Amino acid sequence: MTELSLIGIGAGNPDHLTFQAARALSRADLILIPLKGEEKADLAGLRAQIVATHAPQGRVVRFDLPQRASGGNYLSHVNDWHDAIADAWRAQIDAHLPGGGTVAVLVWGDPSLYDSSLRIAERLGLPVRVVPGITAIQALCAAHAIPLNDLAAPVQITTGRRLRDEGWPPGADRVVVMLDGHCAFADLPPHGLHIWWGAYLGMEREIIAEGPLAEAAPRIRTMRAEARARHGWIMDCYLLARG
Amino acid sequence: MTELSLIGIGAGNPDHLTFQAARALSRADLILIPLKGEEKADLAGLRAQIVATHAPQGRVVRFDLPQRASGGNYLSHVNDWHDAIADAWRAQIDAHLPGGGTVAVLVWGDPSLYDSSLRIAERLGLPVRVVPGITAIQALCAAHAIPLNDLAAPVQITTGRRLRDEGWPPGADRVVVMLDGHCAFADLPPHGLHIWWGAYLGMEREIIAEGPLAEAAPRIRTMRAEARARHGWIMDCYLLARG
Repeated sequence: MTELSLIGIGAGNPDHLTFQAARALSRADLILIPLKGEEKADLAGLRAQIVATHAPQGRVVRFDLPQRASGGNYLSHVNDWHDAIADAWRAQIDAHLPGGGTVAVLVWGDPSLYDSSLRIAERLGLPVRVVPGITAIQALCAAHAIPLNDLAAPVQITTGRRLRDEGWPPGADRVVVMLDGHCAFADLPPHGLHIWWGAYLGMEREIIAEGPLAEAAPRIRTMRAEARARHGWIMDCYLLARG
Repeated sequence: MTELSLIGIGAGNPDHLTFQAARALSRADLILIPLKGEEKADLAGLRAQIVATHAPQGRVVRFDLPQRASGGNYLSHVNDWHDAIADAWRAQIDAHLPGGGTVAVLVWGDPSLYDSSLRIAERLGLPVRVVPGITAIQALCAAHAIPLNDLAAPVQITTGRRLRDEGWPPGADRVVVMLDGHCAFADLPPHGLHIWWGAYLGMEREIIAEGPLAEAAPRIRTMRAEARARHGWIMDCYLLARG
């Protein structure tokens, strides 16, 4: 009998880990650390640090993830990619835990938010336990010491792709944007919008910026490009507010 | 010099606490535990347990919060109430930390999400540090082992009051509803909607339910009323999805 434990490990600060996550890690029979290309140097090091601290005796397997095809139909490529990742997980589990047990998968942020682990786990047909983790949204708000919502008001969470393709969400006053590799904020009509932006949230190299969008957008583009060139990769998100 | 540290402690499970939060607690010179009426028995006990575990030498002050006026203009009452709470915090800080230092305030969930601590802190004019915490939204998704978002799709977070007054948010496919004391989900046209609901999330008495809204709504109303009668209070939230 094999069980999957999807463990949210927070947004880049090893101390974002919860006690619940630490316990789940220490009890796992096998810890999977899938590697994505850009992560290899920095983020994999952070995960290794978390595992070494909280599951020093743990049986850890690192393996490369298959690459996602680009171009064409985005959602169809993502589904194919998730199939391939599920095969890769299954191969590691069969090889390293043939007698069954608990398999822990470390997930940046929280397994519920713009993460594929739950969809991949579903393909494996194994029972799943989820341990929640701090998301980049919470790390962004903490870094700026701001509330996510206006008093008793709604918030929309969306992606850079949606913001670029569909513009400002109808009726929204506050919008969090994730997974934006192309500064979609810079293409919005900036009048009346304010932005709170952050990259590498939770990490020592965390950078943040905020201001009226008209003034802040070019400044953030420059900061982002410079940071990306310096570190070789970037992960960022932002909150936009109207009025 | 006095500094405020707003510490997210998670959604009801003491093990939702992060290592960052535990460290911030253990370093505080004064720990404020504001008490709300309904919390006194259960939630105050959980907070006491967290403080006893992570800041056993900590200087802890418990004090009753002023009550919010009801009826009339909701937002105006809330602002007056926040003024009164800020006065109560200030009085405790002046009395117990006259020479300055770090004041920790324990916040359920995360200080950024439907929480007044940042707005109250702003009234005090003190420098603020925010430590993020697991929210009820993450605990809800973890309990159901579901993603918050559909693949690359947006999510709206709103309140029971908004859902009741304004109906289903235009254009939304997935909506998280917080702060709903009156089962606003039961007044929606249920066709094509699915609900994932949870109460006391993270606590040992956590209860969850899900299903097509037409079938699940009366079931959840009954569960909710019974649980509330049994425990004397309830905190719940839910995710609704269309299609």
